[in-house]
Amino acid sequence: MFVILVYDVNQKRVAKVLKKCRQYLHWVQNSVLEGEISEANYKKLKMDIEKIIRQDEDSVIFYTLRTTKYSSREIVGLQKSSNENIL
Amino acid sequence: MFVILVYDVNQKRVAKVLKKCRQYLHWVQNSVLEGEISEANYKKLKMDIEKIIRQDEDSVIFYTLRTTKYSSREIVGLQKSSNENIL
Repeated sequence: MFVILVYDVNQKRVAKVLKKCRQYLHWVQNSVLEGEISEANYKKLKMDIEKIIRQDEDSVIFYTLRTTKYSSREIVGLQKSSNENIL
Repeated sequence: MFVILVYDVNQKRVAKVLKKCRQYLHWVQNSVLEGEISEANYKKLKMDIEKIIRQDEDSVIFYTLRTTKYSSREIVGLQKSSNENIL
């Protein structure tokens, strides 16, 4: 499965969240990561993030795509990530 | 088509970008909007954003999904948007 992750967390926890996300996904842009991930790792990542964030203050969205056949990504302006477009 | 938009723009232009995006999409979280949009409006939105942002400083990512049949959205932590989950 393909995951697009967008986080909105307190500055105090950004580094920790980002570090965790980077273990599984590629950084795309400020607050955005994406990549192919197994179902098992996806569950693991979600659990790990739940432990790091504050439920009443932070928010992390996971868009999961079972296939990328019907999706694409376009960037207007600066392409901040150096990794190739996987979508 | 369904669009997930994530922007990373200079503070000076955030209000303008957000206002434009809100004309077509629903706000989900800080820097993230999403929603159903026609092909024509999608092109219009992209063009409008190109005019607002600075190409050498700002970045806006559009994930377009031709169908939402294979996708879903999960939120860990705070659900900041009040609108119902469309995905």
